[in-house]
Formats: sequence, C-alpha cells, structure tokens
Amino acid sequence: MDKIRIGIIGATGYTGSELVRILTNHPDIEISLITSESRAGELLSDVHPFLQGIADQKLMSVKQIDDYELDLVFLALPHGVSMDFVKRFKDKPFKIIDLSGDFRLSSAEVYKEWYKTDHIYPEGIKQATFGCPELFAGEIEKASLVANPGCFPMSAILGLAPLLSGGIVKADPLIVDSKTGVTGAGITSKAVNLYSNVNDNFKAYGLKRHRHTIEMQEILNRVSGKETLIQFTPHLLPVDRGILSTIYAQPGQDTSDDSLKEVYEDFYEDAPFVRIRKHIPATKDVRGTNYCDIYPAYDDRTNMVIVISVIDNLIKGASGVAVQNMNIMFGLDQTSGLNMIPLNP
Amino acid sequence: MDKIRIGIIGATGYTGSELVRILTNHPDIEISLITSESRAGELLSDVHPFLQGIADQKLMSVKQIDDYELDLVFLALPHGVSMDFVKRFKDKPFKIIDLSGDFRLSSAEVYKEWYKTDHIYPEGIKQATFGCPELFAGEIEKASLVANPGCFPMSAILGLAPLLSGGIVKADPLIVDSKTGVTGAGITSKAVNLYSNVNDNFKAYGLKRHRHTIEMQEILNRVSGKETLIQFTPHLLPVDRGILSTIYAQPGQDTSDDSLKEVYEDFYEDAPFVRIRKHIPATKDVRGTNYCDIYPAYDDRTNMVIVISVIDNLIKGASGVAVQNMNIMFGLDQTSGLNMIPLNP
Amino acid sequence: MDKIRIGIIGATGYTGSELVRILTNHPDIEISLITSESRAGELLSDVHPFLQGIADQKLMSVKQIDDYELDLVFLALPHGVSMDFVKRFKDKPFKIIDLSGDFRLSSAEVYKEWYKTDHIYPEGIKQATFGCPELFAGEIEKASLVANPGCFPMSAILGLAPLLSGGIVKADPLIVDSKTGVTGAGITSKAVNLYSNVNDNFKAYGLKRHRHTIEMQEILNRVSGKETLIQFTPHLLPVDRGILSTIYAQPGQDTSDDSLKEVYEDFYEDAPFVRIRKHIPATKDVRGTNYCDIYPAYDDRTNMVIVISVIDNLIKGASGVAVQNMNIMFGLDQTSGLNMIPLNP
Amino acid sequence: MDKIRIGIIGATGYTGSELVRILTNHPDIEISLITSESRAGELLSDVHPFLQGIADQKLMSVKQIDDYELDLVFLALPHGVSMDFVKRFKDKPFKIIDLSGDFRLSSAEVYKEWYKTDHIYPEGIKQATFGCPELFAGEIEKASLVANPGCFPMSAILGLAPLLSGGIVKADPLIVDSKTGVTGAGITSKAVNLYSNVNDNFKAYGLKRHRHTIEMQEILNRVSGKETLIQFTPHLLPVDRGILSTIYAQPGQDTSDDSLKEVYEDFYEDAPFVRIRKHIPATKDVRGTNYCDIYPAYDDRTNMVIVISVIDNLIKGASGVAVQNMNIMFGLDQTSGLNMIPLNP
Repeated sequence: MDKIRIGIIGATGYTGSELVRILTNHPDIEISLITSESRAGELLSDVHPFLQGIADQKLMSVKQIDDYELDLVFLALPHGVSMDFVKRFKDKPFKIIDLSGDFRLSSAEVYKEWYKTDHIYPEGIKQATFGCPELFAGEIEKASLVANPGCFPMSAILGLAPLLSGGIVKADPLIVDSKTGVTGAGITSKAVNLYSNVNDNFKAYGLKRHRHTIEMQEILNRVSGKETLIQFTPHLLPVDRGILSTIYAQPGQDTSDDSLKEVYEDFYEDAPFVRIRKHIPATKDVRGTNYCDIYPAYDDRTNMVIVISVIDNLIKGASGVAVQNMNIMFGLDQTSGLNMIPLNP
Repeated sequence: MDKIRIGIIGATGYTGSELVRILTNHPDIEISLITSESRAGELLSDVHPFLQGIADQKLMSVKQIDDYELDLVFLALPHGVSMDFVKRFKDKPFKIIDLSGDFRLSSAEVYKEWYKTDHIYPEGIKQATFGCPELFAGEIEKASLVANPGCFPMSAILGLAPLLSGGIVKADPLIVDSKTGVTGAGITSKAVNLYSNVNDNFKAYGLKRHRHTIEMQEILNRVSGKETLIQFTPHLLPVDRGILSTIYAQPGQDTSDDSLKEVYEDFYEDAPFVRIRKHIPATKDVRGTNYCDIYPAYDDRTNMVIVISVIDNLIKGASGVAVQNMNIMFGLDQTSGLNMIPLNP
Repeated sequence: MDKIRIGIIGATGYTGSELVRILTNHPDIEISLITSESRAGELLSDVHPFLQGIADQKLMSVKQIDDYELDLVFLALPHGVSMDFVKRFKDKPFKIIDLSGDFRLSSAEVYKEWYKTDHIYPEGIKQATFGCPELFAGEIEKASLVANPGCFPMSAILGLAPLLSGGIVKADPLIVDSKTGVTGAGITSKAVNLYSNVNDNFKAYGLKRHRHTIEMQEILNRVSGKETLIQFTPHLLPVDRGILSTIYAQPGQDTSDDSLKEVYEDFYEDAPFVRIRKHIPATKDVRGTNYCDIYPAYDDRTNMVIVISVIDNLIKGASGVAVQNMNIMFGLDQTSGLNMIPLNP
Repeated sequence: MDKIRIGIIGATGYTGSELVRILTNHPDIEISLITSESRAGELLSDVHPFLQGIADQKLMSVKQIDDYELDLVFLALPHGVSMDFVKRFKDKPFKIIDLSGDFRLSSAEVYKEWYKTDHIYPEGIKQATFGCPELFAGEIEKASLVANPGCFPMSAILGLAPLLSGGIVKADPLIVDSKTGVTGAGITSKAVNLYSNVNDNFKAYGLKRHRHTIEMQEILNRVSGKETLIQFTPHLLPVDRGILSTIYAQPGQDTSDDSLKEVYEDFYEDAPFVRIRKHIPATKDVRGTNYCDIYPAYDDRTNMVIVISVIDNLIKGASGVAVQNMNIMFGLDQTSGLNMIPLNP
C-alpha cells in the first residue's frame, strides 16, 4: 500500500511534537509537511532539540500547503485559531483531524456559551465527528473531519460510558474530580506552569466552569440517552503527563465490584487500548502510551460507585488517539504505530 | 513562668522530628526527654542529620521516663503501640497528647471494626478529648489526654464543620476527595514511598475503607447533630507535605458564593490558623505552617457546594496542631511557637 | 531599642518575598515600606497569595520613598537596574544592602567585561563592601553600602576560603561544579523555568562564562593573596531551592580527612551559620535556613581535595545573608531573626 | 530467520522489566523464559502491574532453565550473585550477557579490592568481553560472555574515549562529576530511595571509592594506552532516570570548540546511538532511549576541556546497551528493536 501522506499544522507545541514522536515510527505513513508560522525555516529539532538526528525536517509555513499532496492533516493549534484553518481547508482533498476544542460541541451557541467566542464556521460543527474510537468508530471510519476529544473528557467519558450506557448509575449528579499533569496547560511559559509554582505543590483550578465540562456532558448525553449533569473539578499535579479522574455516581440498580468489572470488560471487549485493571491504576502505568486504564468499584457502605480512569493526556488524551482515529479513517489496524509500552519508572 | 517540661516518646519518625523542629523555637517550653527504643544512646542528629548543631540531644529509652519531671508527654508512635503507653502512663503526673489513631474514635468496638485490632485500654477512649482546637478548645483546656486528629480528618472536618453546623448542606452523602503528600505514609521505607513509585506519578489508594473515614464521620456527627455519611477517597501526590481535600455536598437551603464565604468567616472568626482564602489555595501556600486554608464555592448550574481545604499534613495535620493543643492545655496563647510563615516556593 | 525601620525596594520577586518572610518574625525591625513599580497600589498578598493574613501591606511606588523615615533599604532588583537606585539614593540617610550583582566586582571595567553593560556608578563600587559575614564582618559593621553576594559565589567562597587562606591547596585550577534549584532563575516565566523543562530533568548551562565566576575569583584572590583561576559550571536541578557545589582542588601540602576537618572547624569557629558536617550534606538539610553546610575530604588515591558546600540559594545565597549583614550593620546579634530550622522533609 | 530465543534471569528489578519493555517490541526475538526466585509462579504483570495485558508471562524458577531451548540469556541480577550463575551456565549452549559488575574488571584481584568480595569464577573474567559497542564491537560479535557496562562508566567512557584515544587531553587527573537518577539505586526500598529523602533534594555520595571508578579507569587505560587517574563523584538527582556526567580534563595539545566537535563526530561516525549535540543536552533529551548525547567544549580562559555526556541509565546504561550487544552478537542491525524516541516532556 502507498504510504499515507501526512501534514502537521502547528509543530511548536506538545501535541505537535508528540504527533511527530508517534508518527516517526508508524509503518504506514510518511510526514510530508510540518508547519509553524513562528518558526518557519528552522528545523523541527531546533524547536524541540531532543529530536536532533531523529526528526530534522524543515518547518514550512502553512501558506505552502498547496505544494504538497496530502491525505490527512492534523491541526495541532489552539482553539479559536483552529476553526479558521478548518474553514480555509474545507474544499481541500485531504481529511482533517482537529486537536483543538473548536468542533467538539453540538452547536455554535453552546460553543459561544462555554468558550466566550463566536464560532466562525458552524457548518464544520455539523460535519465533524467526535473522535472517541471506543464509542464512535463507525462514524470515524467515514469522517472527513474528526474533532479529537479533549483530554479530561477522554478520561471521564471512557470511565462513565459503560455505567451510563447500561443504566447502572443515575445521570445526575455525576462528580468528576480530575487531576492532570502540567503539559495540559501547553508549552507557553506562564505563571501556571512555572516550575516553582507547580513543584511540590497541588491545587484545584477552573472550579465550576471548565470548558471540558460541557464536552463530557454532551457526549455522555448521547451515550446515556438522558440529560446528564456533571460536576467537574480539575486539579494541577506536579507531573508532566497523566490524568487521573476519580468519578462518583449513585447506582440506579443493584450492583457489586464483580458485576461492575464484568460490565466494563464486556463494554470494552474490542477496545485494544482500554485495560480494566486488577489493581488501582496510577498515571505512570500508562505514561508514554495510548492506554486508558480503568478501575471500577462499588461501596456498599455508602451505596456509591467509584471509578478511577487514567490516561496519558498527551497521547490517549491528544496525539495518540488522533493517530488511532487516523488508523480507523484509513482502514488500518487501530493499533498501528501505537504499540508503545508504558515508561515506568 | 517556669518552662513547661516536655517529653517526646518516639523520635525517629516524621511527627517526632517535626515536634522537635517546632518546639526548639517555642519560648515557653523545654524539651526534657526524647526517646527512641531502636536508636537509644545515639544523638537525635544521628537519626535526623539535618538537626546537627540544632538538636543534638541524646535519645533515651522510655524506660528512663521516671528519671524526668515532665508536664506533658507527646506520643509520636504508631497506632496499636500508642495505646499501650497511654495505659502504662495512666497514673503519671503528666498530661498526654497522643498523635496516633488509638483514642480518636468513640468506642473500642468502632476501633476494632476499622483498625482490625482489639483495643487494650477502652477507659482511655472515654477520657480522651479529640484535639481539634477550632471545635473543642474548651474541652482541650481541661483535658489530661488529648487524641490528636488524623491528617485527612483535620482537613475534612475544618472544611465541613461550618456547613454542617449551620445546616447549610445535607449530611448524606458527603464526598471527600483528598490528595496527600507522601510523608503521610511515614518514614519507613516501603514500596508505597519508594521515589520511583511516587515521582511523576499519581494514584488513589485505600478506596472505601480508609480508617480516617470513620474519624471524620464521628466528629462531623457531633458537629451536625445528624448521621453523616462520608465517601472518602485518598490519593497519593508526588509531594512531601500537604493535603488538599476537595469536598462535594448538596445544599439543604439557598446559598451563594458570598453567603458561604460569610458563613466560614464567622465560624472561624476566632481561629488564628484558619484562613478563608480570596483565591483557590494550593498546598504550598501552607507548607511549613499550622494554617488551614479554606475556599468554599457554590455552583448554581449543578446546585452543589464545593469546598477546598488545605493543610500541611505534618503540622496542622499532626505536630503543629499538637503544639496548639499543648498551648491550650497550659493556658498559653494558641499561637505561641507557631508563627511559621509558609515556605513558598 | 527603637526598631530599625526597613524599606524593601522590589517585592514581586523571590528575594523580595523571602525578605518579607524572614523580617516579619524579626524582633528588632519594622518593615516601613515595600515597593513595586508594576504592582503599586495592590497588597503584597495579592502578588504572593501565600502571605494572605500574614503580610498584607500595600505596595507603594519607590517615588514615595521620601515620605518614610528609613534606617536601611534592601534593593531586591535585577542587576543593571539596581545601580541606578544606588546612585539615586547616594545622599539619603539610610544604609543600603543591594542584592543584585551591580556592586560586587572590583571595578567598572571588570563589570563591563562580564555583564556586558556599562556601569553607571563606579563610585558606588569603591564604597561597597562585599557582604560575606564570615570573611568581612569588620568591614560590614562600618559599611553604608553592602553588595550582597551572589548565590553560587556564597557556596564556593565559603567552601574554598579555609583551603586558600591556609595555603592548603593550589590556587589554579580550582573546579567548582555547582547545581542549583530553579528559583535561582527568578520568578519571571520563561522556557528555562517552565515546569516540563525542569521536572525529571537535569542539565548544565552557562558553560565557561557565567558571571559568578569572576565574583568567586576576585574574592578568593583576596582570601588567598594569589591569582586564583576557577572553572565554574552551573547546572539546573529539578528542585525549588538549594545549591550544592562540588569543589576539586590539588593540595599544596600534605593533608588528610582529619586535618581538613580541623582546618574548617577552626576557620569557622565563630561563624554561627556554617556547619562542618559529620556526613555528606544534602540541599534539603539547609532548606529554609541561613546555614552553609560543608564537608571536606581528601582522596589519597588521587591526591585531590574534594569539598561539598550546600546552601539555600534564596536564604544564605540571598535574603538570609542580607538580614545577617543588616544585623551586623546595626550591632545586633548576627543570628537575630534567623533561627530557622531546616524544613526537612 | 528463526527468532532468537531469549531467557531473562531476574525479572523483579528495573533492568529486568526494562529488558522486557524493550524486547517485547523487538522484531527478531522471542522471550522464552523469565525467571524470579522470589516471585516464581506469579505473572510478570503481578510484579510490574503496568505490564498488565502487555507481558503477562508466568515467572519460572531458574531451576527450570533446562526445559527451554535458549540462544541467549540476560542475567539481570545483583553483583556477587551473578557470577554464581555464569559459573553454573558455563557449559550451556547459550550465550550470556551479564548486567552485573561481576565480569567487567580485569582480574579477580582488582575485583576483590573494589567489591570487597572474593570472585568465585576468575576464568569467566578472562573470557568476558566488555560490552561497549562503540569501542569493542568486533570483540562483542564473537563473544559468548559479555559484561554489560555500568551506567556511570558508560557515560564517562563515551565522553572521554575520543579525547584519550587521540591524545587530546592528559590522562591524569580526569574529573568525572556525575549526577544520576534514583533508579540507579535499584527497586528495593531503602532510605536512599525513599521519596522524601530524594524529592526536592540533591546530594553527593560514595566519595572517593565508588566501584565504577575502577571500571572507567581500566577501560580508559585500554583506550588511551596510558595510565589514567579518575576522580569520580556520583550525586543523586531527584529524577527517575538519567545520568549526566560533567567531565574536566587538561589539554595535551592545542584545541578549540570546533576542533573538539570534529574529533567527536569523526570518532562516533558509525555509532548510531551517539549524538554530538549542537546545544548542551539535558537528561530528558535521551529519556526512554538508547542514545548517548555528548557536548564537548574548550575554555580558553582556563585552558580546560569540559565534556557533558548524557544517557538514560536504565537503557544506554543497562538494558538498552544489552540489547544492542545482543544485536551485534547475533549479526542483527545494531539498532534493531531500539528505535525509541525520547519521551520529552
């Protein structure tokens, strides 16, 4: 088979470098184009020196995109910027996987309510498929525009879907207490990711109104067929990578540890990257991989279901699931190029 | 005034060395005796080398306790061991502050249920006062045996007391999602506190049945006058010190951010170590101090109250509150010797 | 005695907040004025939220300095900026301790060579006393302008002075391999102190031409009476605070572990903040304190002297030694307000 | 080609799990046997839970080794234990790569001097080849017993070999100031790798007599044809993985930054895992990979050569170079199975 020709738009951030890291060893693709407006003309390894000798491609401007024949473009851009490119590219022959939040929600109205910005390309929202392979592989297979999930939603949705799909828990209220590594805040230096503000420290942020709340809620509405109501609290961990979500829900029927485990194993029977764990998982158990590790439990003293869900936010929460979506879109095995084993320790 | 003569039983652990750190600069006491059975005869600074030149006292065996005139003894021992000493010391002239979990619960039966051990001195449980100065200063003043609170309970109780005392939230269910630094696991080397198991990592543990659950619940029953039901989940942070508890409760009446803030400020008006914070606190904001920082919030979208409560687990969660209790027991100013300012960064 | 009236010029950085942290508990001073041009009008605790309830002073502009009667002003400003203020304040009645590098070197020419900037106030260089209390207490006592030492030089000078003063090692070459916590890079967000660039990482920087090289060399020339030649390599540690310097020198005479220890103990007999350690010190052994811990050793296999020297870069390497210098300038006990005990862990 | 059949003796430590991590994705081998005496009968993923679903093999006792046809055995055992197995296996048909220090030195006498233990199998020392592929690929190709290098020696030898081989620096004294991640201390819990002793901390250890000193020295004697004398000081970093060595040497001839760079690039022209870096490398630049990154510099002010050399201690310093040696021994491409890209951040 011919190699799939890839463009990566936006290479200076973590999702961009992570795409390069994963795709460099992918057997079925070739990276034809990597762009950066701020660093065009430089080598990728000037921006990310650890790639010296591994990925020394020259960074181009996105203006040169028409010089390349591309089958798929990854947009590794901030929200608000990304929708502009999706619009510009709407008649191009290549498929798009957008890693920003611009095409994940149900409408321009909802987008405006949570992102406080007008959406300039509502048609794109209608076309876009939400790129959660464990739920929507059939749609992704046929999609030309995939909205890659947010990192927190990925952990929460995979953690809650089996419960809501089966009616095992009530849809309201669902508490998602999430803890993320600092790469979730991006590569730009600011107080929030300053070493001495993060190291040996821990805090909550974005109480009540984090944008990922609505993303979780809308997708879980689809899964459950009901109106869910999610209380989502993100916290910042002194780690580079990893999200752990602790989820609390009230059962709608009799349950137990064993029956919960069975529900999850059945639900994810064909999902190569979801591991239902024997022991409570830690973020380092999935570091550097596309796995989502899940541990469900039932507390009969309190009649509460507790689910622990763990991912690497840059991989299963961003660039890895993007490659998994690409694999599905091009009829490859879902796991192609994604056979990374956790780097632990 | 004569200096209060102090004995510290058990100096090799973190609570012991932390007591020494705090008491060395306390103007109203003198440390007469420090014991360690495993290291008797050595200097304290051989066990904790950072104390060289600061606290070079010789460690004694507890068998020599009768050679010393003591006004107060701190027991910095593991649970299960501590009750034996409390019993042995029952006719001694000194007061006791026990930092273990042995005398915090309401009865030997409850103790056995949660600690899986028989209690050998149930009379002590009856005599003991729970050492939360913000709630029980009057009792502590008169106590001869104080059960110093557990670290997680301290953060949860101070975070919830104003809500439950005022009937602002329902008593059931209350979710306490806590994250602790690793010193909470003690100084003994084991897999759980091995550097490479903790660093750049995060995990939950003790799901459903952590012993601090019942401690929180019993004290909050007293505060609320109702049966509370607490879902408590501890997590292990890659930090040395600090506990942050994220607490979720459902309102029992109309509320708002502002009214919550007022409730907390009123409740803790006379509490010198509780700070109701303007911004969401981080664990490093209290590191090295006896403060408990609290931030309450109300989410009108979900009708849920969220409270963030932060302490240094070795100080406000152990040795600092022990000194605060000592101050109260001896009629000193609560803040004496406790004027530490957060080490941040 | 009347309290010494203090002004702190520049409060948004770490040396400024650290001065406030130390001075707040100092028994002999009062902080009359804290300035910040960028945040004037706000509270200090808005800039450093961990100080809420502890140090809520309003930040003023330095323009208002004449409204205050001051005995001493600390300049906690960047180099290049500081000299401008020293010049402006030259006829003021208060003494000055400058924490920048502007007045540490021997001449405007040397300054220009290493700082790549013209010095605008060479007269100040002549007046200034280098604020190393262990070497120059007599001069500091009489000084009106003290140039507070750099953090790396403090660790290297205290580590090498006994050897060079006694002619025990050759003056050339001396290797100073130093490792610093990230607060040494300041509070401004930039790539070098971005969490994910520092965490779980380690690197050298500033090879060959770091400005602290010449500062060490000039002071050690004074101490040894010879031309020293120092090879200084700084490295960046994933820690907040702390400098450890590993120093290599060739003996000029017979020596041994024991005789080295004696040399150091004699040399620092009257230095309350230098501890000659029994065991190899770690940076955390001095965290949060004004101590410099030193461990000298002689390797007879290689005929080399190795010295380990450890400080907290923000305290003994900046704000703590500044307070120690203040104490000396005002005839107080050197240790006044500096009785901090290491925060370990 | 038939797959190479591999046995791994000792799977509970880091070098064992790292071998599994690397070999699981190696295209040319199959893991036939993994042993552990303490955990025999359990699954590998019970010992290393992050391997659940990836490497669930059952652990066997080494006593069962004769039930397997093996082409190569990796010994991932402590020194002192390993030599016993090499002796036991001397007539077996498989080749051996020993990851311990037992067969790296030149004689049983030298071994005894530095390891303080009698060597029980001196014949093995004579047969063994030192497994540094960049220096001794020809010997490794023919070897049946390879002594895999120590982690510090690997970084120091690769950093110094081009200088000593070309006579560019003097052989005496050479200063190797190394900083290592904590996995170098092994997986067994002890004070030295307790989280709170390592986190936010830094210290030197093993001054003067670390066993790796003699390993470096003997190999560099071979490279230089002279008697080298190495002053080696290891330090413990608060990171999981990585060694950075800062090396100081005095030139024996005229040199410069550019000429040094050329020397290194020539020397390592055919070494696929050595990168001569444009910028000063950090440990995270090689994390999770088999690279050794080197940056040489010349300081004309002091007439000193400084070399920075960086590896991942568990990979290029242990299990990765072991696989590279295996590749050479079996005529595979050196890079087979070793195409890992740095996990950064």
